[in-house]
Amino acid sequence: MPPIVKYITISAPIPKLSDNLADIDRLKRALLPETSGQPLYIPLAQVSNVAAAFRQAKFSGTAVINDLGERLELVDFVENPGPPDAMALDLGSTHLEASLLDLRSGETLAHAHGENSQIAFGADILSRIHFAVRPGGLKRLHEAVLDNINDLARQLARQAGLAPREIRALAVSGNPTMTHLFLNLNPDHICREPYIPLINAPDICYGRELALDIHPAAPVFIMPGVGSYFGGDLISGIMASGLDEQEQVCMLIDVGTNAEVVLGNRDWLMACAGAAGPALEGGVARMGMRAGAGVIEHVNITPGSGTVTYETIDGSPARGICGSGIIDLMAALYLTGIIDLRGKFRPGKDSRLRQGAEGWSYTVVPGEETADGRAIELNQVDLDAVIRSKAAMYAILTTLVSQVGVSFAELDKIYVAGAFGRHISPRQAITLGMLPDLPLETYVPIGNSSLRGAEKALLSGRARTRCQEIRRNITYIELNVNQEFMLRFSGARFIPHTDRSLFPSVP
Amino acid sequence: MPPIVKYITISAPIPKLSDNLADIDRLKRALLPETSGQPLYIPLAQVSNVAAAFRQAKFSGTAVINDLGERLELVDFVENPGPPDAMALDLGSTHLEASLLDLRSGETLAHAHGENSQIAFGADILSRIHFAVRPGGLKRLHEAVLDNINDLARQLARQAGLAPREIRALAVSGNPTMTHLFLNLNPDHICREPYIPLINAPDICYGRELALDIHPAAPVFIMPGVGSYFGGDLISGIMASGLDEQEQVCMLIDVGTNAEVVLGNRDWLMACAGAAGPALEGGVARMGMRAGAGVIEHVNITPGSGTVTYETIDGSPARGICGSGIIDLMAALYLTGIIDLRGKFRPGKDSRLRQGAEGWSYTVVPGEETADGRAIELNQVDLDAVIRSKAAMYAILTTLVSQVGVSFAELDKIYVAGAFGRHISPRQAITLGMLPDLPLETYVPIGNSSLRGAEKALLSGRARTRCQEIRRNITYIELNVNQEFMLRFSGARFIPHTDRSLFPSVP
Repeated sequence: MPPIVKYITISAPIPKLSDNLADIDRLKRALLPETSGQPLYIPLAQVSNVAAAFRQAKFSGTAVINDLGERLELVDFVENPGPPDAMALDLGSTHLEASLLDLRSGETLAHAHGENSQIAFGADILSRIHFAVRPGGLKRLHEAVLDNINDLARQLARQAGLAPREIRALAVSGNPTMTHLFLNLNPDHICREPYIPLINAPDICYGRELALDIHPAAPVFIMPGVGSYFGGDLISGIMASGLDEQEQVCMLIDVGTNAEVVLGNRDWLMACAGAAGPALEGGVARMGMRAGAGVIEHVNITPGSGTVTYETIDGSPARGICGSGIIDLMAALYLTGIIDLRGKFRPGKDSRLRQGAEGWSYTVVPGEETADGRAIELNQVDLDAVIRSKAAMYAILTTLVSQVGVSFAELDKIYVAGAFGRHISPRQAITLGMLPDLPLETYVPIGNSSLRGAEKALLSGRARTRCQEIRRNITYIELNVNQEFMLRFSGARFIPHTDRSLFPSVP
Repeated sequence: MPPIVKYITISAPIPKLSDNLADIDRLKRALLPETSGQPLYIPLAQVSNVAAAFRQAKFSGTAVINDLGERLELVDFVENPGPPDAMALDLGSTHLEASLLDLRSGETLAHAHGENSQIAFGADILSRIHFAVRPGGLKRLHEAVLDNINDLARQLARQAGLAPREIRALAVSGNPTMTHLFLNLNPDHICREPYIPLINAPDICYGRELALDIHPAAPVFIMPGVGSYFGGDLISGIMASGLDEQEQVCMLIDVGTNAEVVLGNRDWLMACAGAAGPALEGGVARMGMRAGAGVIEHVNITPGSGTVTYETIDGSPARGICGSGIIDLMAALYLTGIIDLRGKFRPGKDSRLRQGAEGWSYTVVPGEETADGRAIELNQVDLDAVIRSKAAMYAILTTLVSQVGVSFAELDKIYVAGAFGRHISPRQAITLGMLPDLPLETYVPIGNSSLRGAEKALLSGRARTRCQEIRRNITYIELNVNQEFMLRFSGARFIPHTDRSLFPSVP
């Protein structure tokens, strides 16, 4: 299971008349016993430097070799190298997260993150695709995210005490649009029926081709995608959870802008995606926001007294509420009878309910307690959005399992990716009828699986092969044209569900 | 035996919701039945254009595919292409010759040639290597020859009615120094003991990497070499003559700046090279020049009368004399007794002999008959140089056959490459003792085998594989350290030889 870049230390004989093989051929000959018959290429752009370094080092030192599966590439020669280091990148549409790995030990040497400055050209995927189609738009989006990535590369290098060009490889995990913009490819058809990416599985490209501030011959591995709504970040999720290697049937849920769900085991994989995300990501409720400082992640309401208790992520005064906080809150509102099973406020049920210009609203945190003096409130519009999101999520999950003919009870594990997985309380999500009523230990948060998948791809040739196998073997169900999904969605618009027998644990 | 670029015409289904594969993946899927399982890559630099062209053509048309042996590269898509055309190049140190081939039919569509303008920086290989080492020198030499090649590419394209970027591939055949300068690689160690090229067998590179005025993704195949004195032009010679496929033992002689000789058959190949060339190429005699307009290629002297008859290459008034002319002349001078068996003038033997400041000289063509009014003469210094050259040549040939333990009589054919092979009279070369005394039909001129070899490499994958096999299997004998060669050289400094029994046909 070789890493994507390997070091091979050799000592070649000094040239003499009776052994006057050319420099590069001499180096290749010395590497022959270590390359087990795989073809070894050297790109023209590297020939001159490699030969000069080989001579400089008196024909002994360490060859830097890209392992591209069915072929190897000799790209550098170093007299006394440090460990081979590579960068993994979760290329999110709002947030980028990166790590630097020692490819030999697998150890994480550094960690960095930052905003995606493409936001200046469009807050969401759709607006960025529209911007990309304008003259010069694609180039600006491409360059914006490359600047971000180069910043992260420099941060990682600085933390590890390296020069950026000592970063020998990069693996990138992102959704299809982000991947297209990163590669300077037109994303126009991704968002228009019949939703066609320009490319799902780009071949290895190189640092120099993208003007990345890493080694010019560093291979750039792009996590492959399956289609417009199923990108490399999801393949990363499958890799990170190990879903494709399980004997039992498991499920992976990744909630971002969309909810993307994969069901399967080592024999088969099915996937679908749908618009269940925004409310849960904090994008719908006026006070909603992504997890961060001062953001409420957990809320409870004491039955009887109606006292609200809450936790912000870092304990600082509240500024807003994130997806997991909203789910907690709605579950509590339901359990205390402040909202009914349709998610509608019951006026008079609680002193925190008041009527304003936009109808009834519930005060989660009064202005006196918040960071900016403005009360954190939830109104009926917010509630309706969350109900739609939770109904969509449950409908997606049920549609997927029913397609395969398994029941939720047969699921061994449900892996929940990202910030959503890290912060959500499965108990509250079940109460709301968003997630199926299973033992809580079924739900396993797996953190930033997009980044983890990219790390795995850097570390192992088998993982890189698996990416492609997964991509080819997965069956994708298009919910946009699925009648059953629409029926299930309607049934799921109650708390917890029109069919209460599906949620025996909910009072 | 696929050509280096092949066209595959496909018709892919139009994308729809139930078949919404990405553009590039759709194209690859359509190509699958035609690529017989070989891995198919697409370089990042081509992805955008290929996808756009594929859409533009409504998913039907012709894919342009580089065949790189163990892998294929998808580099273009064309709705209605002409035949796939490629350029072969003989990259000589003084002269460049190129042809444009239709890769499907093998037909030659155009032909062009020109001077190597690196001459401005150094007349011979050695002076160019010295120039290359000076600051900025390599870059100037590299750019000079690239300009020449781009001129030729444009000429070829114009003749064939194409745009230069419709040239889909290039194969280059040159000596090691020329190859290094073409690739912008330091040739410094080629000319210094122990004579080490930077690289013998460069991998495929691309038009765009060298700023060539052909298709940017055109593969550039470099004929591989064996060492500092055995370059891709010689491998081309072997390929063109078919030496490596003969059952009988044959020989290949290529005389340029050096004399390079290969001996062998389909089972084994031995080679050596030595400085036998300049006098024969016309570089030593003051009136000597390369074959061209007004250049004497054949001379005879009528015994008794001493009348000189001669032919210039195009019948125009004489300007100088080339290698084959000098060999004819010296053989005639010997047969008429004007020079002795040491190659020294015999004063008084002929009225054309006269003594000047530099000793005796012989008037080949009096000033009244020449193009510029200056007589064409040969003096003792010239004669001595030719004697050294012919002795070196014979010594090289005998050393090589004796290493293998065959006799000249066992040779089935002796292929003679280049201008030397085209113009030389084997009879006169035998009389002089330069070539072994074999039936004249043993000698087969093969023309510009450097260009022919490059053409073969473009047309056939088997030929490209053979190049590498030949390179790996050939045994190269270093004459610089060969005692036997020095002894044989001394013995060959008489006309025809100190051992006359070796030349029974010479009176």
